[in-house]
Amino acid sequence: MEANIDNIRVVLVNTSHPGNIGASARAMKNMGLANMTLVAPEQFPSGVAVGRAASAVDVLEQALVVSDLPSALADCGLVVGASARSRKIPWPMLTPKECAERALKESINNKVALVFGREDSGLSNEELQLCHYHVQIPSNPACSSLNLAAAVMVICYELYSLLSGAAGKSSPSEEEYWDMAMATGQQLEQFYAHLEKVLVRVAFHDPDNPRMLMQRMRRLFGRIRIDAMEMNILRGLLSHLEHHLDQARQERQ
Amino acid sequence: MEANIDNIRVVLVNTSHPGNIGASARAMKNMGLANMTLVAPEQFPSGVAVGRAASAVDVLEQALVVSDLPSALADCGLVVGASARSRKIPWPMLTPKECAERALKESINNKVALVFGREDSGLSNEELQLCHYHVQIPSNPACSSLNLAAAVMVICYELYSLLSGAAGKSSPSEEEYWDMAMATGQQLEQFYAHLEKVLVRVAFHDPDNPRMLMQRMRRLFGRIRIDAMEMNILRGLLSHLEHHLDQARQERQ
Repeated sequence: MEANIDNIRVVLVNTSHPGNIGASARAMKNMGLANMTLVAPEQFPSGVAVGRAASAVDVLEQALVVSDLPSALADCGLVVGASARSRKIPWPMLTPKECAERALKESINNKVALVFGREDSGLSNEELQLCHYHVQIPSNPACSSLNLAAAVMVICYELYSLLSGAAGKSSPSEEEYWDMAMATGQQLEQFYAHLEKVLVRVAFHDPDNPRMLMQRMRRLFGRIRIDAMEMNILRGLLSHLEHHLDQARQERQ
Repeated sequence: MEANIDNIRVVLVNTSHPGNIGASARAMKNMGLANMTLVAPEQFPSGVAVGRAASAVDVLEQALVVSDLPSALADCGLVVGASARSRKIPWPMLTPKECAERALKESINNKVALVFGREDSGLSNEELQLCHYHVQIPSNPACSSLNLAAAVMVICYELYSLLSGAAGKSSPSEEEYWDMAMATGQQLEQFYAHLEKVLVRVAFHDPDNPRMLMQRMRRLFGRIRIDAMEMNILRGLLSHLEHHLDQARQERQ
């Protein structure tokens, strides 16, 4: 069975600024979420919301508007509420990553609500107690109040990262996405030989007193992982230099 | 040696909307970052930026304004640029999490720049080539353009999560943060015995035809992890019920 992201909704409670509703819709759609429920928004529908939603206007158009939080949660098997502060009554608390894991897992068989409170005061204690879990975004204790849409962004980002497999996965190794084959070991050795020859010729390198120069060159070029085309360019440069030196010598003679 | 977050700066290139500068400053401060550099912003300083910055006005006030990207990067040992698309010339690519790892690691000895481009078109190819790495936020291919401040939020969130140790760490186990000891195994057994006695008395439960009732009760209460105070409440309720039944019987007699 697979996670069903269409079973996951974002619920915004009593939002004051329609711009935050629009920005939340955009964040949701960026992260593959489509279902928004608005509990008693102060201003909705709103042109400001549409402006901030950018290409996520469809999320706004399909948003469900209800009058209280229980109505928004009536059919939900899992409810997670965003909470900035630690509360008097401790409640099972998730990190954003754990929230993503649980929400995706339970989305197989359940409707899941991710609930976000007011811009100024978050969710009330009563509303928080309608949640099975609370989720807290780690933040600077000296400035812990996140913008509403920023909080929606983080929670949805963790969901999408996990869903798309980007969370555990490292970025593709260079071999996988590079558009050019890497230089082979043989090509590298030919390059180092060519380089050394030129360095000697211009008297930058003295094989009788090498001072680790070639080792340093190897360490430097080895770190870069030169591709075949770059190798051609470097070899071309060395040949060009030699040719130039030849001509200069002929002119002097 | 420890990561030095003060060595990490956020660089915004050619930002059109001052609101995005303000929202980025707020996201930065929420995540413990203080250094913002603005490359040729269209409107700055700006009251709109101040409004959106909320309590991060100090980040705006201390922001450095420069005229071109190389000036912003002059003293940086590591430059990571946010890139939405895959480019013609492939470039070493990091996930937001890998970006956080590398930025924190290199912040020990280097100034680090995290570079974000224009709202409509991101960073130019020329600007992207000033970066050692690109970072890409995973997103819905059907709607992959993030709001600028939302992108800043995600990148800074990964930084702060890693720095604060929240990334690997799971949330505290219930034992660690609960304000009350859990009910002991013995208390639980006494509760189940008491419960069964009452269920039999009200003829809800027939020990000769148990239909798994007590197993179901155990599975239910076992999942909750009842704490000592909750256990007292439940036992009190059962005793109260018994007392009530006693009285009713006496009245009938």
